[in-house]
Amino acid sequence: MNDGYNVAVVGATGAVGTKLIEMLEQTNLPLKNVKLLASKRSAGRKLLFKGEGLFVEELVPEAFDDVDIAIFSAGGSISQKFAPEAVKRGTVVVDNTSQYRMDKDTPLVVPEVNKQALKDHQGIIANPNCSTIQMMVTLAPIKQSVGIDRVIVSTYQAVSGAGAQAVEEIKQQSQETLDGELPENLSAEILPAASDKKHYPLAFNALAQIDEFAENDYTKEEWKMVNETKKILEDKQMKISATCVRVPVITGHSESIYIETEDKISLTDLRATLENAPGVTVEDDTSQQIYPQAINSVGKKDTFVGRIRQDLDIDNGFHLWVVSDNLLKGAAWNSVQIAETLHEMNLVHV
Amino acid sequence: MNDGYNVAVVGATGAVGTKLIEMLEQTNLPLKNVKLLASKRSAGRKLLFKGEGLFVEELVPEAFDDVDIAIFSAGGSISQKFAPEAVKRGTVVVDNTSQYRMDKDTPLVVPEVNKQALKDHQGIIANPNCSTIQMMVTLAPIKQSVGIDRVIVSTYQAVSGAGAQAVEEIKQQSQETLDGELPENLSAEILPAASDKKHYPLAFNALAQIDEFAENDYTKEEWKMVNETKKILEDKQMKISATCVRVPVITGHSESIYIETEDKISLTDLRATLENAPGVTVEDDTSQQIYPQAINSVGKKDTFVGRIRQDLDIDNGFHLWVVSDNLLKGAAWNSVQIAETLHEMNLVHV
Repeated sequence: MNDGYNVAVVGATGAVGTKLIEMLEQTNLPLKNVKLLASKRSAGRKLLFKGEGLFVEELVPEAFDDVDIAIFSAGGSISQKFAPEAVKRGTVVVDNTSQYRMDKDTPLVVPEVNKQALKDHQGIIANPNCSTIQMMVTLAPIKQSVGIDRVIVSTYQAVSGAGAQAVEEIKQQSQETLDGELPENLSAEILPAASDKKHYPLAFNALAQIDEFAENDYTKEEWKMVNETKKILEDKQMKISATCVRVPVITGHSESIYIETEDKISLTDLRATLENAPGVTVEDDTSQQIYPQAINSVGKKDTFVGRIRQDLDIDNGFHLWVVSDNLLKGAAWNSVQIAETLHEMNLVHV
Repeated sequence: MNDGYNVAVVGATGAVGTKLIEMLEQTNLPLKNVKLLASKRSAGRKLLFKGEGLFVEELVPEAFDDVDIAIFSAGGSISQKFAPEAVKRGTVVVDNTSQYRMDKDTPLVVPEVNKQALKDHQGIIANPNCSTIQMMVTLAPIKQSVGIDRVIVSTYQAVSGAGAQAVEEIKQQSQETLDGELPENLSAEILPAASDKKHYPLAFNALAQIDEFAENDYTKEEWKMVNETKKILEDKQMKISATCVRVPVITGHSESIYIETEDKISLTDLRATLENAPGVTVEDDTSQQIYPQAINSVGKKDTFVGRIRQDLDIDNGFHLWVVSDNLLKGAAWNSVQIAETLHEMNLVHV
């Protein structure tokens, strides 16, 4: 009989790691033990779990010897190095980085959408990109109902998606701006992408670059939305293009999504489809000025959808405004939900 | 012989009014005298014009007796009341409000795009909405070259478009947030629309509402972009839908614009079309992380276009990132440019 799992959090001290601990405090997953792993630099720090102090341990391969499920959120290179070590030791890995997402042997899972893909896992399950997840929760039920022919999405993404240091950076830039400093005198070392050559201030600005630039002048973030969507929805033919933009929001990604459905659907039926969708809360009453807002999404697990309206010219065209906490459904909550689903489907090999 | 015009600024003390004075300081328009008009409350204040103190005078019908050109930027109801009074007195009115924009006898003008429409003016010329203008400067040359079948635009609009008080509001909210205040404790009395029932904080947030809601759950701002575009481009058949969003930017509207052209055009030719377009500066080199940014647009008269790229699925589909100073090209500069053009075309009846 299963007396609970040993669960490890890799990258426990980061922006997502902190939220992973919160989500594990709330999970239904039977837990025997929680282990916090991080770089040598962070080892020895004490973090609270359910009111109890847990020491952060150094991430070494042997740390996985007694771990059933490990949730990784410490960057792609850490996942590349240590996820196989964990799998070798019988650990099931839920990986928050982009490292294994497009790997053909790795399921890429949003539990409300494609939990059946978990059945084929070979030790690693990838958690999709934050901006993809909230779009998937919203679009999958529509696709299932009437099909989706094309998607055009423009994002309004929060800073916490770029990590805790990026949040500190924009707070400092914002304070300096309020104190009268000019944009050209603000220091910027992280955004738009830590790994990139140039850095720009985001305070009171909008940066049409997230992650590095890649093929065809699209950014990696834009390609993630395109490729991950096709993989999760198992639809290589779907037309989809993305424009990913970072805005001065701390937490809560917003997305302006245009879709064209394959079959006709009335606005009423589209709304009903979303109201019945798991993980979705419809917030949409223009007579009361009700629509999703980033600051209202913080700390909530659902994805919020509003501004649901028909395109002015295309019968099968609809516009949606989709908002979710990028650290929760976009990362920590989706990962813990994957772990819960693995348990429910009896797919954790203890 | 024309020894210069008497020009009045109505609403001289507002966010746009201040910029109108700056633009008149720089204009080529021969000026005889500049008169600053505002509400009784502001009358008597002294504002600098070319280093000289000018008293703000009270806005009354007789103030237009000796005025050749009046630029209005004091709200729709002021324009409704006083623009006809000005016209009655032989003044040509350039109106920055939405009051006369869709009036069939009023030309709606972006000088780079449709200055020929000025010929039919009957005393009032309307300045389009800020978010429309920068899109027109960008799309008109493309439409002229290969036609445009459809447009889908999502905006990232700055606060100064909602006036000086809205700027103060977000600055205060931002400071309180940085000091640790929770979003639910922030005071909001202006945004998203002063005339509306509910107000929400914009600091570190994104509000998918600009102006009030109107038909079909689109906002008035969204309808402005749709209807003004069709009027300016003289194309009632163009398919266009908009999602207008306010973001925590002080000045500089950004727009994620998707277009489908009627005829085929290569990416190279599309770029060349924009490079040759009047009022447009192309900032687009992903290898150097060059793309338009709101904070860089401030104080500049041009509209900046970047992230020019082909849709991933549609041959005739392209994505653009379009940024401009909403107080200059979006308002004050376009108005003064209209006055200059009226002069060049000999359409000011002195």
